[in-house]
Parts: sequence; C-alpha cells; structure tokens
Amino acid sequence: MALSNKPYKGTRDFFPPDMRIHNAIFSSLSKVVENYGYEQYNGPMLESFDLYAAKTGEEIVNAQLYHFEDRGKRRVAVRPEMTPTLARMVSQQVQELPKPIRWFSLPNLWRYERPQRGRLREHWQLNVDLLGGDTRLADSEILSLAFNLISEFKGQEHIQIHINHRGLVNFVFQDQLGLSAEQALQVSKAVDARPKIGEAAYEKWLSDQGVNSDQAIKLEAFFKSDFTSLCENYPCEAIDDLKAIFKNLECSEAHKVLIFDPMIMRGLDYYTGLVFEIFDTSPENNRAMFGGGRYDNLIGLFGKHQLSGVGFGMGDVTLRNFLETHKLMPAIQAPIDYFVALTNKDYWSYSQQICKVLRVKGHSVYEALSDVKLANQFKQAHKLNSKFVIIVGEDEVAQKQFQLKELATGEQKTYALSELEALD
Amino acid sequence: MALSNKPYKGTRDFFPPDMRIHNAIFSSLSKVVENYGYEQYNGPMLESFDLYAAKTGEEIVNAQLYHFEDRGKRRVAVRPEMTPTLARMVSQQVQELPKPIRWFSLPNLWRYERPQRGRLREHWQLNVDLLGGDTRLADSEILSLAFNLISEFKGQEHIQIHINHRGLVNFVFQDQLGLSAEQALQVSKAVDARPKIGEAAYEKWLSDQGVNSDQAIKLEAFFKSDFTSLCENYPCEAIDDLKAIFKNLECSEAHKVLIFDPMIMRGLDYYTGLVFEIFDTSPENNRAMFGGGRYDNLIGLFGKHQLSGVGFGMGDVTLRNFLETHKLMPAIQAPIDYFVALTNKDYWSYSQQICKVLRVKGHSVYEALSDVKLANQFKQAHKLNSKFVIIVGEDEVAQKQFQLKELATGEQKTYALSELEALD
Repeated sequence: MALSNKPYKGTRDFFPPDMRIHNAIFSSLSKVVENYGYEQYNGPMLESFDLYAAKTGEEIVNAQLYHFEDRGKRRVAVRPEMTPTLARMVSQQVQELPKPIRWFSLPNLWRYERPQRGRLREHWQLNVDLLGGDTRLADSEILSLAFNLISEFKGQEHIQIHINHRGLVNFVFQDQLGLSAEQALQVSKAVDARPKIGEAAYEKWLSDQGVNSDQAIKLEAFFKSDFTSLCENYPCEAIDDLKAIFKNLECSEAHKVLIFDPMIMRGLDYYTGLVFEIFDTSPENNRAMFGGGRYDNLIGLFGKHQLSGVGFGMGDVTLRNFLETHKLMPAIQAPIDYFVALTNKDYWSYSQQICKVLRVKGHSVYEALSDVKLANQFKQAHKLNSKFVIIVGEDEVAQKQFQLKELATGEQKTYALSELEALD
Repeated sequence: MALSNKPYKGTRDFFPPDMRIHNAIFSSLSKVVENYGYEQYNGPMLESFDLYAAKTGEEIVNAQLYHFEDRGKRRVAVRPEMTPTLARMVSQQVQELPKPIRWFSLPNLWRYERPQRGRLREHWQLNVDLLGGDTRLADSEILSLAFNLISEFKGQEHIQIHINHRGLVNFVFQDQLGLSAEQALQVSKAVDARPKIGEAAYEKWLSDQGVNSDQAIKLEAFFKSDFTSLCENYPCEAIDDLKAIFKNLECSEAHKVLIFDPMIMRGLDYYTGLVFEIFDTSPENNRAMFGGGRYDNLIGLFGKHQLSGVGFGMGDVTLRNFLETHKLMPAIQAPIDYFVALTNKDYWSYSQQICKVLRVKGHSVYEALSDVKLANQFKQAHKLNSKFVIIVGEDEVAQKQFQLKELATGEQKTYALSELEALD
C-alpha cells in the first residue's frame, strides 16, 4: 500500500510559493527588530522536560506538551514556547552580557492542539525579549516595537493593544478581595479562558475555587473599571507602571491604539508585571493575534543571578490570517532571472560557461535538463516566471554566441559570449 | 535546586555571535543554490514514523531515530533526514510541477548519536534535490553545485569528490560475484562502515553474510580497480553514466577534484544510481564532510507516479570543522550602527524621534535603558561594537539637537534634529 503523502495532523508543508511568503514575512519582521538592536539566537528543538514543568503552566504541560523518554531514559520535550530556552541561555552569560540584552529568535514551536483557525500543532514565531534596563522604559519599547512590527505591513489601523499588569491583578485579587495566591492564579486562568468557555463555565470555575458572591461582584466591578477610576480606587506601584508606560508612549503612534484592559491575563504562569495582547479589530479574527509580558523570576530558576525581562511571541498563523483579512500579504518577486533552454544534451557543457558568468553576477539561472521541443521549454520558462530565456543551438556553439529573449517584450537578440560580462 | 542551564546532550545553543556565523554560512549557501534556480521549501519537524521505516535504512531507524507515540496514539518521529519529506511533498504535486524540480531546504535534523567530532544529535543541513531531466546532466549539475558551494567559501583546494554508482555496485556484487540482493545490501553496509569498524569486523561481517573467500578476493580486486580497468572489466550502463558525468564536467573546475572511488556506498538504502562523498583533504577531518546520490524509487512510495531524483545534504557541523581547519570562516559585520545613550529617563521620548528616523533609514539602533554614568554607557557601546554614539542632554532637548560621536575616530559633533534626515 502506498504511504500517505500528507503532513502530520496540524502541521503544514511549505511548498516554494508558500515558503517565499514565509521568508518575506520573517525577513521583514527580522529587519524591524534588528533595527532596534536585537540580535538573533537559537536553541535546540528538544529540551529537558523539567524546563517547562517549572513555570510554563499546567494546561500546556499536562495537555499540550509533546514529551517522551529518549533512549538514555532522559525525559525530553519538543519546545512549546521559546521563553524558557531564552532564560536558560541568558542565565549562562547573565553577568557578561551588556544590558539591556535584546534578543530575538524565529523558532518553530509545538503544541498538541485540536487544529482550528489560528491554532496548529506546529507554528513559527518571532520571539522578542528585552532583559534589564529601566522596566518602564523597556515595557514601553516592547509595546512600541510590537506596534511597529504590524505597521511594517501597514496593518496599524486594524489593531488594538490591550494592556494590563499582573501586579495590579495580584493587588486587587489578593490584597483587596482577599483571595489566596492559588485562588488568584485560578481566577486569572478562568478570566483568560472566559471568552472560549462561556459565562456559565466561568462562573462555575470561580465558585469551585471558593470565590464568594461578594468577591465575584467586586471582581466584575474591577473588570468594568476604566483606567482613571482605577487609578483612584487601587493606587499601587503597578498603576504607576502603567501610567508611566502610557506617558512614555504619548509621542508614539502606538499610543492611539493602546487600551487598558483589566481582563488581559495571559496563559503563562511566569508573568509578573505588564501583560498585553494585540487584537485584530476585524470580527473575522476575533482573538488575540499575539501577546507577551514581563517576567521577573525566570533567570533565577537557573542560579543565583536574577534579571527581569519583558517579551512577546508573534506567531505566523495568526499573523497570516491578519494579513490575509486586510489584504496586506507581501507581494513576492519572481525567483528566476534566466531560463537556459537545452536544444541538445551535448551543448550542456557550453551553456555552463554562460550560466557561470550570470551566477557570479548574482543572477538566478535555471537550466532545462532535457532537450524536449523548444515550445515546451518556453512554456516552462513562463510557468517559472523567468525574465529571460537563453537559447544555444548548433550555430551559437560554433560561433561562440547565444540568443537572449526577454519574455515580457518578446524581444530576441544574438550576443557573443564575450558580451556576457557587460549584460545588464 | 536550580534547574540546569545546559542544553540537551548533543545539541547546541546558538548565542548571537554564533548565530551570526550560522546565518552567514547558510545565507551564502542559499545564495549559491538560488542562483542555480533552486527554490526553498520546508516541512514539519515531526513526521509519521512510517515515512522513515520504509527506506531510510535499518541503522538509523532502529538505533538513531527519535520516535514516540503522540496523545492520539499516532507514532511520530523527529525527522532524521530531509529526503523522505521532500519525496512526500513532491508526490503531492508531481504532475503539475515544472521539471526538473529544483528544491532546497535548511532543516534541523535529529539523530540519537554519541556526540563526537562532526556528529551531534541536532544539526542543521542544506538539503538540495534535483528531480527529473536527463539523469546524467542532473548528476553533473549536482556535483558541480556541491563543488561551487565549497568554492563559495574558497575551500575548493581542500576537497576531493569521490563518486561511485550503486548500479555498478549491484552489477558487480550480484551479476559478477553472484551475491543475493540481501547479501549485496549487507556488503555495501559493511563497506560503508569499514573505516569506522576496522578490518577484522569488516571481514567478520562479510563471512557472517556467507561471502566466500573467492568472492572476497574479487570484491577486493574491484575496490582496488582504477576507472579505466573497470571500464574494460565491467562494461554496463552504470559505467556509461559515470563516463558521461566525467565528460560533462571536463570544462568545470570540479573535474580537478573528481575521483572514482568504488568504496563509496552511502548509508541510506534508497540510493540507486550515482553516489558521492565530499572529503576534506586535511588529515584533521578524516571523514566525508557530506554526500548524496540518486534515488529512483522514492516518489513512487506515495502513489503511482514515479520520478527519479538526485540530491545531497550538507551538514553544518562538518562544514564548520572544515571552514575552521582551513581558516575560511566568514567574517561577520558588527550588528549595531547607533548606540543611543540615556542621560535621564525623561529624555527617552525625545530620543524616540531620533531612533525612528534612523531605523526608517535602515540603521540598527540600540538604546540604553538606564541612566547610569555616561562612561559606562560608552564602554557598553564599544562592547556592542557600535559605530556611533548619540547623546542627548538637557541642552540638546531644549534646543532640539543631539550629539553624535563616531567611536573609531572619537570625532564628536552637535547636530540639529532637522539635520538627521541628511545624515550619511
């Protein structure tokens, strides 16, 4: 029986036209972050299971992590997110590295999920992290950078940036409402899941955690607060952080789309400060496109040195949905400059001289490798979107020449080999 | 207890300086293959286990493959090589795609190995495949391309390309020596392993397979043959293929380093025609750097359509060893153009205007995010290898100016914000 030629469930094959789009998107994203002074890093696809067990969060580790035992009985995991790898690597050089540390990565990540719009088992991410420096300035930079990544694709009018602060959430949930740390964590997870699971399940989650009706009412009042009333009702350092961020970004275009949203929690357990999500304002993509936040205690998992960081991961699946919805997908140039036709297999060596010169000049040269009818070769050159076709026949070989045809104009001319160097 | 910050055994962390080298190497390699008209593709990291069980070869599947059952009881494998993914993908579009199909990929691949020089559990590869077209021309192109990849790094004088033909091997082993197909396969594996396992183990392998002493003597005579005597003693189609390849490449620089070597087998079961390995001539790296060959029956595993292909995978670990040995590692440019110092946190918003203009112009701008002593910020700018430092103090903010210092010359000048657009 024939083997299946389909990719593993929830994953994608990138055929060349799709790969060109993928590369164009990630090269635009990389350019933006490199212009902010971020440097690329990478880590291995497999990591120790313990790396995620520590802080990534129950839902991912218990239900979504790919993990198994290797032949040497080590428990390894396929990375579901990049931040633990980043923290592990930073901890190796935390003292030597100039601060702030600005790093980015373009990993593929794996989660066992039911494939659906915006969620696949394998996706690619731009991961951006900024560690050290004044935390309010760093938070402001990260938000401004996230905004500029979207505006690189001219999408800035179609997004909102929702921000919140874990410190504020903890202050309200624990200090004001008297929830325990565990209750506060569970409530934040329930709030995070609320749009997906619905009101009934949300309320049940809360009551299962022993949240009483008075607390539930106060919770709801907090979620409905605007930022001004919040500043009055819940004065705390987290509020001052958020105020400073709003002020820092006043001169930035990002300020126009920045919204305080006390219901933003983020699913990952390690966030301690700013948390944010970028939303597509189109009803077609009604979930957060991507998000991130500040984590204070990750580097310290690996040793005695501590360094606070802020970052986000921007996935390609939701980004593509966004760009497609708003017709902002990058246009991709044709990859082939010259198609070299083959009229006789014996002329292949002769053609090599032409190809070599053109390639050294940086052109992409595709050679036919079978001497089928020239008309068919031209069809193929069109299909490959080549700009020129080069034809070498008996006469050309004898006289050290070649014919060059421009496909767009149909113009065809004979050149001497010696003229090749001077061509365009 | 603190978590370990080391990567999983046999894998590497790519810190930014290493990542720059990695990117420079793979971008040079990509440029060369793109200039030959190859287009990039990619597939998922996890594939069905069955994809490798079919043709990849016993040693890899039984001893080196990472595989496990997913939560839905599917047996999946972390890809150990790219060719099966390529064949799977090509089979989906085999009728529509223009021929020859020229594809490349830059996958990371996994094998459970004892880490040692040139072998790690995770490595990155340039994978190049050419399907369709005249097989002798295609084989010639692939060899010439492999040569040009090395000469892109100026390494062409330090390599030899050893070529052989599985058709010739089968003809000699089976038709001439009377070995069964299974014996022939086992002998080819023994020959492939011979340099690693030594003569005694090699001879035992042969005799365990029932190879008699007469056959062993004839085998040895074959391995010692030069190409000319082989052409006389073993006339067959495979010999004609090899002759044509030598002839096609006569005008190419690759011809100088092309050597017939009847002991080249390649470990993978699916090769049917040309097989080759590129050797570093330095005694420090005394194994094949990379290799490949022609496979006739891979696409047919997935359906009724058949298409012959030839390709190779060039791994980054052996390539780096080669480049280091011969001092050919690419030099990497400094990543930072402007370091923007911070003398007061309140000036951050003002600096944003400067950063924005420079970034739009394509410069990489790194901002300090803490107002420590200026001398320390300069130290850091040097450490980051920045070309310029921008300083903004009280006077500059008041007068809408900034100071620009070039680190190489020490030259420092004050500019008006309005002069920014015209800067370099």
